[in-house]
Parts: sequence; structure tokens; C-alpha cells
Amino acid sequence: MPDPQILVSEVGLRDGLQSLRAIMPTAAKMDWIRAESAAGVREIEVGSFVPARLLPQLADTAALVRYARTISGLTVAVLVPNLHGARAAIAAGAHKITLPLSVSETHSLRNLRRSHAQVIAEAQAIGALIATLPDDARPHFEGSLSTAFGCTIEGPIADAQILRLAEALMTAGCDEVGLADTSGYADPASVRRLIRLVRGAVGKEALTGIHLHNTRGLGLANALAALQEGITTLDCSIAGLGGCPFAPGASGNIVTEDLCFMLAAMGLDTGINLAALLEVRKILAAALPGEALYGFTPDAGLPLSFAASERPAPGQMI
Amino acid sequence: MPDPQILVSEVGLRDGLQSLRAIMPTAAKMDWIRAESAAGVREIEVGSFVPARLLPQLADTAALVRYARTISGLTVAVLVPNLHGARAAIAAGAHKITLPLSVSETHSLRNLRRSHAQVIAEAQAIGALIATLPDDARPHFEGSLSTAFGCTIEGPIADAQILRLAEALMTAGCDEVGLADTSGYADPASVRRLIRLVRGAVGKEALTGIHLHNTRGLGLANALAALQEGITTLDCSIAGLGGCPFAPGASGNIVTEDLCFMLAAMGLDTGINLAALLEVRKILAAALPGEALYGFTPDAGLPLSFAASERPAPGQMI
Repeated sequence: MPDPQILVSEVGLRDGLQSLRAIMPTAAKMDWIRAESAAGVREIEVGSFVPARLLPQLADTAALVRYARTISGLTVAVLVPNLHGARAAIAAGAHKITLPLSVSETHSLRNLRRSHAQVIAEAQAIGALIATLPDDARPHFEGSLSTAFGCTIEGPIADAQILRLAEALMTAGCDEVGLADTSGYADPASVRRLIRLVRGAVGKEALTGIHLHNTRGLGLANALAALQEGITTLDCSIAGLGGCPFAPGASGNIVTEDLCFMLAAMGLDTGINLAALLEVRKILAAALPGEALYGFTPDAGLPLSFAASERPAPGQMI
Repeated sequence: MPDPQILVSEVGLRDGLQSLRAIMPTAAKMDWIRAESAAGVREIEVGSFVPARLLPQLADTAALVRYARTISGLTVAVLVPNLHGARAAIAAGAHKITLPLSVSETHSLRNLRRSHAQVIAEAQAIGALIATLPDDARPHFEGSLSTAFGCTIEGPIADAQILRLAEALMTAGCDEVGLADTSGYADPASVRRLIRLVRGAVGKEALTGIHLHNTRGLGLANALAALQEGITTLDCSIAGLGGCPFAPGASGNIVTEDLCFMLAAMGLDTGINLAALLEVRKILAAALPGEALYGFTPDAGLPLSFAASERPAPGQMI
């Protein structure tokens, strides 16, 4: 299968489930992974290698990595908080590991219980570990700049600090950095501005993805702004599950279903079958009784005569 | 007061209330109009001059026009379905009248019970009536192209038909045409495409506004696309009330609170005080018990340190 024009990266199994009290059974998570990848989603963040006592919701991450690895064409991603987690991720066989670094040091201390210097040291250690691996065993290593659009504790973060940390992550051995709107503070203008700024420091190829929340309803407008800057990987979660348990009031990734409808309507290729994608939330509804499921397209359904032939050519007027 | 850079036009009192079974008391509507105009909203569509037996929710429109006219700096808008309604609107003193013309003739027949030829004839009669009025008594006359992005009954509507109807409305005497995504089928690419197309037929000055719904969650992304094309008037409703009772499944205008947060965050001037705007929905909550109120910004609140000084200069990187 050729690479899609836009890579939709599902993060609900990590960012979504970590914010819920309920623990989804491993079998249901596997059903979710299988159904969503069968619908054409090519990258899924299946969990996080954090201690089970901190996030029991994600204690089965290693088993999920091993399961997801059996699905052809799927990039299996995980979050790791440190070298210890990276070792576990590599042992399980993750294709991609993401180390979050909160550009707000206050948020970093409260969330990861580490200073910036400590997180950069972990990144260096992970980079060094990866460098010892044979080529075909090296995971893609992303450093994610969280609270990049502002922090619920500190407010706006200085540009210079964000750039310094982006550069430090690249120097430590990251293949790329990502921008994460952990707090839901981003707007289309700040998305465009920060992408340009960070690319100016690390290069265009080292910033291809963005992680957006829909906290204030701007998620898809922000996604559009990111697409207009040439971003090609968009994180999202089925039914808008997710948020940050350490950033009060900041909940809800952008909704996979609504994002994929927008991309398809605009004629952008994702490789995803929308009708099949809209079925996936049934697995969540059954396994997470009582949890709120978000998204507008699932309620409204697809437009009449929604067919590729009715839509503009791919890439037209992003 | 100088004109704001972007005109936020509240349509909840018309498009929102017409879709609810409950009838909001006139006193509560007046509270709503007063509070929202005090927050800085400069244009409010207060109702529709349709027969009270068809839409009893809007039976007090004449009284609301007279009340809203007493508020300095507020443009008082109403919807009219025909010449009869336009006469009533002019008698009450509306500053702006909007005649909807559904570009889907099937939808037009079901919604307004009129063919395209009949609606154009009404537009001509309204245009002729306005031409007889003294300059200072002439309302601004807009023809709104509804179902412009597709119809829930017919599906996509041919470009040529949309352009023919836009030109016919202008010839009939409209000051401008507007685009309305009645069915919630629009996406950012189609928004940009149709704005360019219609402006090619009627001129840039004759298309300055757009009426968007959030049916599939794309409302603010579509608003961003419209801003990028130079649209300066955006319809919306407090708490996302609204929809079209004749287009099943197509409910919910874009949320005034979320739109205004996005515009402010982008540094675009609307003349609106966000904190005051966020108070307005309390009037709706009290007067419409049990009705769902939408919007993310009201739940999440404004970002920490959200101040004009933190934001990019007006108009930057729309």
C-alpha cells in the first residue's frame, strides 16, 4: 500500500484511556486496534510504558504492542516517559516511541516529576541506546513538545525556551519533534506561527506532526491551519477520548471521525474507509459503559452522495 | 464606535429558537438581545416574519425589532420569506432583511413551499418596494443562498444553478448575497471554492457573509477558510442553538462563544468582550430548561493570561 497523503495517528488508546477511571479490558483494546487498522488507520499509539501503579489503565501496553505488531502495514507507537520505558518499548517491538517534554517546566515537574535538564538527559540516554541497535531494530524516536501553546499553570511559554528545548531534543538523538497542544490553548494563528518558528530551528523534515485537543472547540480549525503549513501527521482519538489528567479542564483530543470526514471532504487521501471508521466507536461504547463519546459526524452521518467523485482533486485548496 | 474588523452576527434568536419546541418568553429574548449587544455583538437577527401558526416560537418578532432598535449601535436583522414578511419587517423598522432562497429547488418547495421562480419573483417585489422608500428608511437587503453546499434531499447542487440564482437575486435588487450551509455539508475546501465562484459572478463586495452550521464538527474550520477568503461577516448562535427543521439531521449553528474565542485568539477585532459574552448563555439556560447548550469554551473557560497583549497583531496569519 502506498503511504497516504495525510497520516492519521490514533492516540485514544493512550491519551484517551489514561484520562478515564475505567480500565478497558485488553481484549476490547485489541478489538479496537484491529477494527481501526482494518478501516485504514496506519498508525496507532497503543499505550504508554509508565509504571502500572501510576496508570493502571495502560498496564497492558507491552501485550498490545506485541499484538499490534502482527497487523501488516500498521505503525505501532507508544509513549515513554524515560529510558526505562524506552527499553521496555524496544523490547516489545514498538516501531515509534514518543518522549514528551513539557516546555512548561512547572508542568514538567508536576506531570513527569522531572526538570527540563532531567528530561533532556533521558532523551540523550534513549538516543544513545537506539544508536547501539541494528538498523532494522531502531524505533523512530520523537520528542513531543507538550504545552507548546501555553500551560494551564504558567500561561504562555517564551519562544526562546521552546526553540532551545526543540534543538536539545534533536541533539539528543530524536528523529523529529512534535508540537502538542496539551492545554487546548492553540488557535489557527498560533499553530501556523509556532510551526514556522520551530521549523526555522530544526528544519522542515524534523517537524511533521501535531497533537491537538478540542478543549475550546478549535481543534479542526487548528488542524486545518497545520495542514496549510504542510504538516502531514495529525493525532486524534476515536470519539474524542482523552486529555491530560495533570492539566485540569484540558480534555479531549480532536475526534478521529470528524477529522477524517474533513480530510476526505477536502479530497485529501488518508487511506481510510469512513464507513468502517464510524463503526469503531461501537467497541468503545460497549467496553466503556457510561463514558461520554464525542464527535458530530457519527451523529449526523455522512452527507448524501458522499463519494470521491463529488469531491475536489486531492490537495486542492488546502 | 468604529466598525469591527469581523462582524459577528448572532442568529440564535431566529435560527436557534425556530428549531426548538419550547417558546422562549419575549422578556427573556429581550434580556438576551440586551446582554449580547452589551457584550459588543453589533448585529443580531431577532426573528423571522413568518406566520405565527407556522413558527409560534417567533411570533413576537415585530416587538423584538422595535425593542432592539432602541439599542444604540446594533444592526437589527430579520428573516423574511416573502414580500408580505418584508412589509412587516420594514414597518417594524428592521435594518437588514434576509430572504432565503434554497438553491436546491426540492428543499425550497418543502421549506418555503415555493419554486425558484416564485422566490425570485418575491425578491423582485421586495426590491421594488425598497426602491420606493426614502434613503434613510431602506433596509439592507440580503438574499441568502441556502443549501449552497449540498442538500439533504438532492445532494450536491450544480455550480451553474447556484450562480444563476445568485445573479438573479442581485438583479432583483438585493444588496448582497450570502452563502448558507443549511445541511452542514461544507468543508474548508468547498467553502473557499464556492466563495470564489460566487464572487466571480456577483463581485467581491456582493458576498461578505457566510452562515455555517457545526453539523459534522467542521464549523470553525469552515469559518477559518471563509476568513482566509476575506469573508467579514460570520453568523453564529449562542450555545450553538439552531438548525433547519426541514433538513433532518442538520442542526446547530456554529457556537458564538467558540467562534469569538477563536477570532480573539487570532488577534482579529470583533469589538466583543469575551467574559461578558460567556455570561449570555445563562439567560438561555434559565429560559429554556432542559435544552442542550453546546460550546466548548464556556465549559473550559478562557486560557490563563488571555489578554490582548499576548496575542499576535490583528490580521496576522489568518
